[in-house]
Amino acid sequence: MIINRREFTGIASSLPFIPGGVSFTSDESGGLTDVSGLKVGHFTDSRRPTGCTVILSEAGAVAGVDVRGSAPGTRETDLLDPVNTVHRVHAIVLSGGSAFGLDAAGGAVQYLEEKGIGYQTSVAKVPIVPAAILFDLAVGDSSTRPDRKAGYQACLNATDGKIEEGNVGAGTGATVGKIFGMTYAMKGGLGTASIQVEGLVVAALAAVNCVGDVTDPRDGTILAGARNQEKNAFADTTSVLKTKLRGGQPQKSENTTLAVVATNAAFGKSEMTKIAQMSHDGFARAIRPVHLPFDGDTVFSLSTGSFEGANLAQVGSLAAEVTALAIVRAILAAASLPNLPAHRDFLKHVKSKS
Amino acid sequence: MIINRREFTGIASSLPFIPGGVSFTSDESGGLTDVSGLKVGHFTDSRRPTGCTVILSEAGAVAGVDVRGSAPGTRETDLLDPVNTVHRVHAIVLSGGSAFGLDAAGGAVQYLEEKGIGYQTSVAKVPIVPAAILFDLAVGDSSTRPDRKAGYQACLNATDGKIEEGNVGAGTGATVGKIFGMTYAMKGGLGTASIQVEGLVVAALAAVNCVGDVTDPRDGTILAGARNQEKNAFADTTSVLKTKLRGGQPQKSENTTLAVVATNAAFGKSEMTKIAQMSHDGFARAIRPVHLPFDGDTVFSLSTGSFEGANLAQVGSLAAEVTALAIVRAILAAASLPNLPAHRDFLKHVKSKS
Repeated sequence: MIINRREFTGIASSLPFIPGGVSFTSDESGGLTDVSGLKVGHFTDSRRPTGCTVILSEAGAVAGVDVRGSAPGTRETDLLDPVNTVHRVHAIVLSGGSAFGLDAAGGAVQYLEEKGIGYQTSVAKVPIVPAAILFDLAVGDSSTRPDRKAGYQACLNATDGKIEEGNVGAGTGATVGKIFGMTYAMKGGLGTASIQVEGLVVAALAAVNCVGDVTDPRDGTILAGARNQEKNAFADTTSVLKTKLRGGQPQKSENTTLAVVATNAAFGKSEMTKIAQMSHDGFARAIRPVHLPFDGDTVFSLSTGSFEGANLAQVGSLAAEVTALAIVRAILAAASLPNLPAHRDFLKHVKSKS
Repeated sequence: MIINRREFTGIASSLPFIPGGVSFTSDESGGLTDVSGLKVGHFTDSRRPTGCTVILSEAGAVAGVDVRGSAPGTRETDLLDPVNTVHRVHAIVLSGGSAFGLDAAGGAVQYLEEKGIGYQTSVAKVPIVPAAILFDLAVGDSSTRPDRKAGYQACLNATDGKIEEGNVGAGTGATVGKIFGMTYAMKGGLGTASIQVEGLVVAALAAVNCVGDVTDPRDGTILAGARNQEKNAFADTTSVLKTKLRGGQPQKSENTTLAVVATNAAFGKSEMTKIAQMSHDGFARAIRPVHLPFDGDTVFSLSTGSFEGANLAQVGSLAAEVTALAIVRAILAAASLPNLPAHRDFLKHVKSKS
């Protein structure tokens, strides 16, 4: 069950890696940039499948965070505690590259400083850029990781328009269904979605790199996950865990789903922390199992504050819903890599065999 | 949408209140007492629908807790922080009666002291009994609440056999689906379930008193929840929240789902905290929405420690699964009260009309 990384790297590099994702439309479409004031930019590495995604809130957004996985890699999350002083952040960075990828946040800090954006101290404006990483070092050459330049480039690429989904940015090297290791895994990715109710906007963006299976939260159908021994059907991770002691061998600390939830609703830091917390219920509904000792699952929340009088319970509930939707879209938009089939290709493969 | 409590009390008391739940069997049956070393006892008040449930671990069980709702009422949860000294608890008490019901824990402390059970200090054995409460004061006469005697009686009633489910113990006055207030709510209750894998046992007991709808985690079907204006179908709380701004008016701080998850797997306090944390994913899968500002959702976890070598990720994943199952069983076992139909009667009613 242990992947031979050299062999894997060889196969991966025997086919050209074409960076780039898919833009598709659906009735449930929409994305994080439906929250006015936010821009999203990807850096997608052309050397191997990795990258980073920057969410810019240049006017400052009230932020919260909730770390719920037990293998997190983060930066500037302590300041988001409601008891601490700084309330507004200027960007969030999600990155591949494991702990090395935290450097990408430095690129966003540089970009913001050059634009004169930051928290005003006595001598300089200090950009506030919380960040979190996911582990994608097992996909291709592990020495290639998003760095400061990658983060800077993602800022240059940022747009308030349609967000590219799939194998892009922080989702480029993302994989899912790893209970039996990488050999039976499938391709994860990055997705985004929004819900709008009478002027209230709640949106999410997720980079999905989980141990568990990704399921349709409406009916529990597995969309992507661990494959069986023959690699022609889903193993159904939960069923395996229910029937066999030590049935799986998840890689330690090598998984993570990262999300940013944003709303135009005006809330303080405590409320945004609650919204980040409730968003993890979207993880629970779309990923099974989740929040594992080997996942670094983290949600950041952003409030631009233009919509007054929203109900916290409603926004938190919608945040959970839209987070689940963004996770599903990440899987629907993902494209196959060698040995890592995506949802769309795997289902085709299975159907053609039956 | 505001309930007239006098009117409600009047109607409720115009019919005899018969305490007691239902014991039913199913292929998925089993319960918390499948973890050897635990006993469960209910006190069900005969005056109005309220009560408490005690889980006895007289030999001491390593415990954890995770409070995830924003309106909790708890006792002795701080000592469960892994950094703190005491590792083992002798009982957990779940109670109705809002903050008043925390007194029920005193009855369990008394019972244990009389049996010579407790944490050995320099001068006395001090029983360690964490507790959490739910709000059921709106069902019948709010001046009737579980007290010290109720907690003591629950201990006397404790058994290591089959656990009664439904309108019993802490679930006696539990209600669900309260986004439009009590007028459109349905009956909640108490349920239990277990999963066994090659000698590993993971079990849960839940008292379900949530704002949200309770759904079948397998396919998302609503089992009990807020009823529509005509009270002849489900309103579908999530759909309402998705389409109407301030669509609901949940009662503030008057809801809660409480659970105890237990396993025979040997783990320390940090691992048991992780298991309590992952169990909340069972809440997310079976209750929609959940973890609201008005819910005091809390999970306690217990390890009796007789099974060595279990995998934390597996036990946590099964804890989430079995917690969802216990929540569903609480709803299936619940019996109707005046103005508060239970799942079984409401479905019958709706079916007979169509």
